[in-house]
Amino acid sequence: MGKFRRVPVGIVGASGYGGVQLVRLLMDHPEVELVYLGGENSIGRSLGDLYPHLAHTGNLPIEAVELETIAHRCEVVFLSLPDGLAWQIAPTLLEKGCKVLDLSADYRFSDLATYTSWYGVERSDRSTAVTAVYGLPELYRDRIAEAQLIGCPGCYPTASLLALSPLLKQGLIVPETAIIDAKSGTSGSGRQAKTNLLLAEADNSIAAYNIGRHRDTPEIEQICSDLAGHELTIQFTPHLVPMVRGILATVYATMRDPGLVRDDLITIFSAFYRNSPWIKVCSSGVYPQTKWANGSNLCYIGVEVDPRTGRVIVVSAIDNLIKGQAGQAIQCLNLMMDWDETLGLPKLGFYP
Amino acid sequence: MGKFRRVPVGIVGASGYGGVQLVRLLMDHPEVELVYLGGENSIGRSLGDLYPHLAHTGNLPIEAVELETIAHRCEVVFLSLPDGLAWQIAPTLLEKGCKVLDLSADYRFSDLATYTSWYGVERSDRSTAVTAVYGLPELYRDRIAEAQLIGCPGCYPTASLLALSPLLKQGLIVPETAIIDAKSGTSGSGRQAKTNLLLAEADNSIAAYNIGRHRDTPEIEQICSDLAGHELTIQFTPHLVPMVRGILATVYATMRDPGLVRDDLITIFSAFYRNSPWIKVCSSGVYPQTKWANGSNLCYIGVEVDPRTGRVIVVSAIDNLIKGQAGQAIQCLNLMMDWDETLGLPKLGFYP
Amino acid sequence: MGKFRRVPVGIVGASGYGGVQLVRLLMDHPEVELVYLGGENSIGRSLGDLYPHLAHTGNLPIEAVELETIAHRCEVVFLSLPDGLAWQIAPTLLEKGCKVLDLSADYRFSDLATYTSWYGVERSDRSTAVTAVYGLPELYRDRIAEAQLIGCPGCYPTASLLALSPLLKQGLIVPETAIIDAKSGTSGSGRQAKTNLLLAEADNSIAAYNIGRHRDTPEIEQICSDLAGHELTIQFTPHLVPMVRGILATVYATMRDPGLVRDDLITIFSAFYRNSPWIKVCSSGVYPQTKWANGSNLCYIGVEVDPRTGRVIVVSAIDNLIKGQAGQAIQCLNLMMDWDETLGLPKLGFYP
Amino acid sequence: MGKFRRVPVGIVGASGYGGVQLVRLLMDHPEVELVYLGGENSIGRSLGDLYPHLAHTGNLPIEAVELETIAHRCEVVFLSLPDGLAWQIAPTLLEKGCKVLDLSADYRFSDLATYTSWYGVERSDRSTAVTAVYGLPELYRDRIAEAQLIGCPGCYPTASLLALSPLLKQGLIVPETAIIDAKSGTSGSGRQAKTNLLLAEADNSIAAYNIGRHRDTPEIEQICSDLAGHELTIQFTPHLVPMVRGILATVYATMRDPGLVRDDLITIFSAFYRNSPWIKVCSSGVYPQTKWANGSNLCYIGVEVDPRTGRVIVVSAIDNLIKGQAGQAIQCLNLMMDWDETLGLPKLGFYP
Repeated sequence: MGKFRRVPVGIVGASGYGGVQLVRLLMDHPEVELVYLGGENSIGRSLGDLYPHLAHTGNLPIEAVELETIAHRCEVVFLSLPDGLAWQIAPTLLEKGCKVLDLSADYRFSDLATYTSWYGVERSDRSTAVTAVYGLPELYRDRIAEAQLIGCPGCYPTASLLALSPLLKQGLIVPETAIIDAKSGTSGSGRQAKTNLLLAEADNSIAAYNIGRHRDTPEIEQICSDLAGHELTIQFTPHLVPMVRGILATVYATMRDPGLVRDDLITIFSAFYRNSPWIKVCSSGVYPQTKWANGSNLCYIGVEVDPRTGRVIVVSAIDNLIKGQAGQAIQCLNLMMDWDETLGLPKLGFYP
Repeated sequence: MGKFRRVPVGIVGASGYGGVQLVRLLMDHPEVELVYLGGENSIGRSLGDLYPHLAHTGNLPIEAVELETIAHRCEVVFLSLPDGLAWQIAPTLLEKGCKVLDLSADYRFSDLATYTSWYGVERSDRSTAVTAVYGLPELYRDRIAEAQLIGCPGCYPTASLLALSPLLKQGLIVPETAIIDAKSGTSGSGRQAKTNLLLAEADNSIAAYNIGRHRDTPEIEQICSDLAGHELTIQFTPHLVPMVRGILATVYATMRDPGLVRDDLITIFSAFYRNSPWIKVCSSGVYPQTKWANGSNLCYIGVEVDPRTGRVIVVSAIDNLIKGQAGQAIQCLNLMMDWDETLGLPKLGFYP
Repeated sequence: MGKFRRVPVGIVGASGYGGVQLVRLLMDHPEVELVYLGGENSIGRSLGDLYPHLAHTGNLPIEAVELETIAHRCEVVFLSLPDGLAWQIAPTLLEKGCKVLDLSADYRFSDLATYTSWYGVERSDRSTAVTAVYGLPELYRDRIAEAQLIGCPGCYPTASLLALSPLLKQGLIVPETAIIDAKSGTSGSGRQAKTNLLLAEADNSIAAYNIGRHRDTPEIEQICSDLAGHELTIQFTPHLVPMVRGILATVYATMRDPGLVRDDLITIFSAFYRNSPWIKVCSSGVYPQTKWANGSNLCYIGVEVDPRTGRVIVVSAIDNLIKGQAGQAIQCLNLMMDWDETLGLPKLGFYP
Repeated sequence: MGKFRRVPVGIVGASGYGGVQLVRLLMDHPEVELVYLGGENSIGRSLGDLYPHLAHTGNLPIEAVELETIAHRCEVVFLSLPDGLAWQIAPTLLEKGCKVLDLSADYRFSDLATYTSWYGVERSDRSTAVTAVYGLPELYRDRIAEAQLIGCPGCYPTASLLALSPLLKQGLIVPETAIIDAKSGTSGSGRQAKTNLLLAEADNSIAAYNIGRHRDTPEIEQICSDLAGHELTIQFTPHLVPMVRGILATVYATMRDPGLVRDDLITIFSAFYRNSPWIKVCSSGVYPQTKWANGSNLCYIGVEVDPRTGRVIVVSAIDNLIKGQAGQAIQCLNLMMDWDETLGLPKLGFYP
């Protein structure tokens, strides 16, 4: 298969953990060719200068972010930038015919007022924003396939929504009782030199943060509301865990029908995800550990019922940088290009 | 202060992590003298053979468990054995006049039927069991001071109950909505050579286990029921975190009065624990990390209110081997001997 | 490319970390098909039962080790067994026409007397053993290509020899001064439930072990002697590091010519490995960290000269389970089958 | 014992890991009272603001560094500042009668030319510098007892010198063959928000750094030269290990007398350190892990002889922040005040 047939793709913001994971995955994808890396701070340097383990990627240089050039060279552009930047770039790229997958929060909200109230940024791109599709393939596979602009989900929302969706969609729970207790490795905070992310501080310790006010809350609520058919408020608490990768979401909710047992729910989950190759519903009595998912695009889901309390407890595990970020974006791209949804994505965890 | 004035104490089951932590703390306690170490598997060896870092403890040998001898030499005996053994020993020691502090689950239950149904052991020591006091000083300080037999709390129940007690005692929450999502370092599973506790398996990974059926559940429910004044069922989920020490309990509950704000609750917690030197209620907006507590007998408590959901979220952090086990037992001993509650216990965390 | 054209391969001993890594890599290899998994303890179970993250491998069952069956179905057999078992199996498989790659120590020694003195096992397969080739492609590429039986190197010897070989081969150092201080993650000790490998024991701690008597010593010495042209004794000290994967070897030796500078040596190393796609010699002043290599088959080598002491210091970093074990075996297979040496092997580290 | 009898001490630079460890230890010391904390960046704040686990230290405020005030209030002053600052403060404090213990490199060198050439700073305090004593009590106990100014050793030099001293002092090795391969937890790099110290970067990885040019090299060489009686050059290589605390130094040297065996050396080491309460020489065949020393002021030393190579290999383990820094400074203070050398210092490791 000649290189000339590969789809040329570019990445704007390639030097963070998400960007670096994207590079790694795209290098192994059989149908794309990485032709552009853009950044602000490292123009002229190669990715191998920033990440020695990437020195063998052909040493594509990091270039300035010139939209004309990007659009000319790339059919697809991934935006891997801090929140609040993508919306200043995406409209132009779309206009020039690129497909755009944004990994930031900018295009995750159907209601920009919600975005503005949580992110503190006024936006002038409403006409573009309404065309964006929320890039969670297990829920919006068909719309993603038709989209030109994808707002890729956050890592916490991905793990949380994959655990909650079958329950909400099938009306199995009292929605207001849903509580998400989520745990993340420190790579989820990016490659920032912050004191609290130092090994000497974060190792051998766990803590909650941003209780009741984490920015992923409205994103989770928006999709949950969509599934439930009415506005929902969801309890979401993130924790920082002394590990590099992985998110575990432990989700609690009261069942409408207290007569349901564990195996009923496993059957329901399995049916809900029967066409979703990246979801693995665990067998009865098995709960996932994050390490199973590390290095793959899989989401593992364990389901439990507590007959004493009438609650269902769902545990989901993903690699925050793959299914929670770069891998899921490529999964969306596969759908947009009408390729197999699993193409070029790692299936087996990096264990132990 | 001459040695002759020190209280002679012994430990049965000194080679596990709990026992070893007890040794470390008792060696530094100004009013006691460790005169006996008992075990089954290592008779004749010294603790320094098992734990080289304890070779400087005077090299007390590990002796056979002969109750007559123990009672003759010790005024106080700590039992640090697997569940189901202490109740076969304690009655005799008590009869011979010893004060007994049991670190297992054997004397934590006022209703032995609950014990039998969760631990699968029939008991013949009911008359002794009813005299046991649950060794959580922050709740039962006065009764502990009068007791001859203490059932020391589990590590998960300690963290959970210290977070929940003010809420239940003051009637601030709807009790049935309480959910405890707890996270523990692997030392909580003891020094057992199990595959899932290997560094290669447990590091860089987090998982839930025993959802809805962990044996600490009835223990938590018993005390919560006592505080609420009626029978309660509580949701409790433990997780294994890639760290050695520490427990973080994240507790959720719906408030009866949705008008309460964060500072109200901090005031209530501070008042509830105003005579409890080992509880530190964090200031507004601060949540603890387990590392703050590591190496000390402290429990840190952070309190948050989510006005959007009407829930209170409390986060408590302890060192599972100190406040969650050995340190708390010594805190009880201090009360039983009418010593200062803080005597001989570490006040400052081992940070970083 | 139809499945019928793929080479059928089998693994005996698939349930350890080495075997599991082999499975993962072989599933992604474009020219082979995994058709047989053999084991003793888990017959009838699938690999997904032992390792949930492998449940998507087609669920090949673990079968009994019947040599007739294996040879009938497999063109290539990997033996991933504890030391001392492979030599009881390999001769029969070879006789029946299989290519055999042994991951244990059994076929690493040209002189069986050395094997017997360090491993304590008498052997009756001398005629087979002399046909084995030491599977370090960077040194023995041509002989591997012709071999039917490969003794794959240990993980410590791989890292150590790749650091030392250019120095010894070019006569740049006084061989007797060579000291190898090696550091390994705990997965190098395999999936054994040993107390010292527990997270609670091994985390946040580092220690040396088997100083001067580790079994990889004679293996290193054999190859070093071959390179130097005379018998050598080498100082080798392994350490256990609180991490899952990775080996770092820090190698010290006195240079014959104290006038050589760092860049001279980098030039020499680069030339020595110019046809070795899996070796990356770092640029001047850069030393590798093991994480760069994790998840890939690469060996990173950093070279330094200390003009004050006249020594060269070489630091090599590999993933112990890939370049140090399963990946290197596949690299050998590629050579034996006349495929590209890099075929089916991961090129980019799993970072962060 | 009334507070009025305690010796008033102060710390300048209390907010780093070394300073924080000093505070923790001094709070527990029976003969001193911490009366002053000085800093530049946090004036007016309490230590509990910076480190919540220290909120129970009486909340001494951090004050400006005014030498007049300090000298008026403190009999003893610890300087815990970055290299290059202490020498601008110490002369004045000494003049005003304070005893000064400097934890930086400023007063470790008897020859200021060496300091200047490695640290790049010209000094004008030669007359003060010559009065400083190198604060390694196991070597310079008597001189420390008489000193008014102590240059406390670095953490790497402490571990390295305690391993090497008996060998050099007794003339047992060829000094030029000595190689120190040292491994440190990341807290040794201080509480700096550097990318390479992030958990996401440093966890699950090990690397060497500053090979042949680390600033602790001349410090080690100075003391080794003193012991050997002539100028020595020593090979020293530091490594960053994925753990918070602890240093392990693996030291290699060729023995002058190849007939010596392991037990000979253990006898020699034990004799050398027989009056040193903080040194524990391991029994035959035992090598320390750093975790044994964590939380204590102990240095564990394991000794091995390799008869095949004629080398002695010594492994030493310390807690870098205690015996490697704050604890050793207090050990020096004990000597200066004619108190028991072990007073107020933790004897038992914080295990597991």
